[in-house]
Amino acid sequence: MNLYDTIAAISTPIGEGGISVLRVSGDETFKIVGNIFFKDKNGENRFDISLKSSHTIHFGYIFENDSLIDEVLVSIFKTPHSYTGEDLVEISTHGGAYIVQRILPLLLKSGARHAEPGEFTKRAFLNGKIDLSQAEAVADLIKAKTETAHLSSIKQLEGSLSEFVKSTRQDLIDITSLIELELDFAEEDLEFVKKDELKEKIQELSSKIESVLESYITGKIIREGINLVIAGKPNSGKSSLFNYLLKTNRAIVSTVPGTTRDYIEESLNIKGVLFNLIDTAGLRMSSDEIESEGVKRSFAKIDEADLVLYLIDSSENIKLIDECLNYFKKNFNEDKSLIVFTKIDIASKDFNKDGIKVSIYKDESIERLKEEMIRKVVSEDITKKTGSIILTNMRHKICLENVILSLNNAVNSINNSMSGEYISVDLRNALNFLGKITGEVTNEDILNNIFQKFCVGK
Amino acid sequence: MNLYDTIAAISTPIGEGGISVLRVSGDETFKIVGNIFFKDKNGENRFDISLKSSHTIHFGYIFENDSLIDEVLVSIFKTPHSYTGEDLVEISTHGGAYIVQRILPLLLKSGARHAEPGEFTKRAFLNGKIDLSQAEAVADLIKAKTETAHLSSIKQLEGSLSEFVKSTRQDLIDITSLIELELDFAEEDLEFVKKDELKEKIQELSSKIESVLESYITGKIIREGINLVIAGKPNSGKSSLFNYLLKTNRAIVSTVPGTTRDYIEESLNIKGVLFNLIDTAGLRMSSDEIESEGVKRSFAKIDEADLVLYLIDSSENIKLIDECLNYFKKNFNEDKSLIVFTKIDIASKDFNKDGIKVSIYKDESIERLKEEMIRKVVSEDITKKTGSIILTNMRHKICLENVILSLNNAVNSINNSMSGEYISVDLRNALNFLGKITGEVTNEDILNNIFQKFCVGK
Repeated sequence: MNLYDTIAAISTPIGEGGISVLRVSGDETFKIVGNIFFKDKNGENRFDISLKSSHTIHFGYIFENDSLIDEVLVSIFKTPHSYTGEDLVEISTHGGAYIVQRILPLLLKSGARHAEPGEFTKRAFLNGKIDLSQAEAVADLIKAKTETAHLSSIKQLEGSLSEFVKSTRQDLIDITSLIELELDFAEEDLEFVKKDELKEKIQELSSKIESVLESYITGKIIREGINLVIAGKPNSGKSSLFNYLLKTNRAIVSTVPGTTRDYIEESLNIKGVLFNLIDTAGLRMSSDEIESEGVKRSFAKIDEADLVLYLIDSSENIKLIDECLNYFKKNFNEDKSLIVFTKIDIASKDFNKDGIKVSIYKDESIERLKEEMIRKVVSEDITKKTGSIILTNMRHKICLENVILSLNNAVNSINNSMSGEYISVDLRNALNFLGKITGEVTNEDILNNIFQKFCVGK
Repeated sequence: MNLYDTIAAISTPIGEGGISVLRVSGDETFKIVGNIFFKDKNGENRFDISLKSSHTIHFGYIFENDSLIDEVLVSIFKTPHSYTGEDLVEISTHGGAYIVQRILPLLLKSGARHAEPGEFTKRAFLNGKIDLSQAEAVADLIKAKTETAHLSSIKQLEGSLSEFVKSTRQDLIDITSLIELELDFAEEDLEFVKKDELKEKIQELSSKIESVLESYITGKIIREGINLVIAGKPNSGKSSLFNYLLKTNRAIVSTVPGTTRDYIEESLNIKGVLFNLIDTAGLRMSSDEIESEGVKRSFAKIDEADLVLYLIDSSENIKLIDECLNYFKKNFNEDKSLIVFTKIDIASKDFNKDGIKVSIYKDESIERLKEEMIRKVVSEDITKKTGSIILTNMRHKICLENVILSLNNAVNSINNSMSGEYISVDLRNALNFLGKITGEVTNEDILNNIFQKFCVGK
């Protein structure tokens, strides 16, 4: 694949809407678009957009031979002042699925190649407009459904992780050069840095990285959401609670094909955290059924969950309530479960069990439940924590773990009084893994793996 | 509703994509966007876009208070050089459902009103950028799924119907002014135009309009598609034929909510004409079942159809085939049905019945079938016919019918030697109905009715 061939794609979602946009990027962009773009509606005068200034918009007509396809606006971006860093054109057409699907083949016939998923962003990376962690943030940003997911990806796009990597890398380079300077003067037996000092500096770096690594648990929640099961006996108020939560907290989700309706209806956005409801239809809590296949399957789902709300109807008689509590203790993992007493508005007056007490007729009781739900899964307030770096990406996590591993090796080498060469190799390894995050060190496989997760047109 | 308040909406379909676009239009556009648009990623310097030239693009940052929401491109269009004719801004953000749904409320909080469906196009009309028939063409263009639907709407947008109305109107004004001139000089008993000549001129106009009205049948097919039933005994090859057609002719359809999957799977685009398959599952063709409820219901659907393909397995024995043919003659309307002999590749060698003979293993036989299908429902080749005006809109049809009615009244008045006043009233009526098509004569109800069918953001 020639890095600088010209690519084209539809960049807006397919569907009915006011506007659709096609994007073209590469050396031949102006020529290729110029082949089908005309000044007048008779299709007599081609538009030579290469003569126009960057960042200007031009009205004209797209033709396929003699047939007018659409009136469009063409936006011109000249290298290097574009998203990709290359000559780039955006063609803004009337909306709908049909027109863009007529224009795209015209661009391909005129010399463009259909862009791979994420190829525009890949070029932005390859042309030095953004680093690799920022490119990955673009994909996360597009997929964001909650405030926290949005916040962590926009921060990453703005370079929060990049800056951390850059400064850590600089520190590491400083340390490494001290060691390597010593190696250069090995015959003279000079010591440029005390080994204890060196160890201390490396360990300092390690603990800085460790604290970023710790944010990955939070990051995983931000990225993937919390798998939530609402369990309890029939008529314990499961549906009422779920519907109440759904009504006020439905997540903003896309309507692209592949996102099933079921999923849409079961995605809750509570205080900026995404909760994915796992269906446990068929769960009955009577002990004689505990061995049945249906209940087994339900418990398998409960095991997958990050959080279980176990609902008990507080208006039942106390014997039944105690039975439920015993059932809960026997069958549930308390570390990831919350007991929720429902229908507290009609509970008997002397009801005084420990647990969260809610009624869907008391908004403030549901607010308290939401707070408890967040507290149970997230050690601290995610929305506040996003002030610092949050690691959401498995690839970054693995890179940082490898950096730590290499730094530990370096410390061991120092402890074992091994020669500077060994320490230097370890430190260079650490540098290498750091560079992989931002893409200073990379290869085609890593890139393909990253960009294939993008949508086409970005 | 103040015509010139400032409106905002998301103009691209909601879903995952590279780019999303918000549109803002009205007097306060630059101020409202300026409130949330900043030059730098610290959110320190607002961007005064009113100082920038029209048709230029600017990179910057959208903030909600201190929180960065996205890096965006802002395109500026200054009155009257915009889609609406007003000051207009397009904000191009990263794709996905979330970001635009964060930015829209910021625009509303900053002083914009959420646009009604089609309100941007409505303003283009009210500000004299396009006439009403062109505005209606925009909605048709967005909904187009086939080449013919696209072609007829783009022609209408380019003004083919507008020009016809304009020239007809001018002719009618010329005639009317002759009559009215005569009325002005009534006392002097002058005859400015011979009544026979007048009649002839009016009838000429009438027949011009009639020929445009005739195109409505074609227009309806273009707009709504042809309701197609594939009928026949079990195992006559219905599914095979349908799947074959579907594989090669699936219509380009949108994936917006409300378009059901079923519909998507049953929309065929054959030679630029949309065929909507009507399901007749349960139709059995044996005569003893003719009175059963299921068959009755199927025949109700067959009655609704614009075209029925009645399939007969040509590899059956000749007695069975004749039975099917008799059954067809008794129960089907031959005017809108085609007999199709299937499995012709395994028919006996002496098979020589009249009808279309196909095999899904012979591509050219299916091509012939497609040609026959088109010929049966469309008097001439639609794709060629789109060179002239095709009436696709019921509203336009009714207006033109009323024009004809008024012209006929005028002719009757002349025939009955009624005074010029009566003829003048009839002609003025005709002018009024003509003006309604392009919106020279209109009212709020008509406008609301037209624009409520648009999507929001156009």
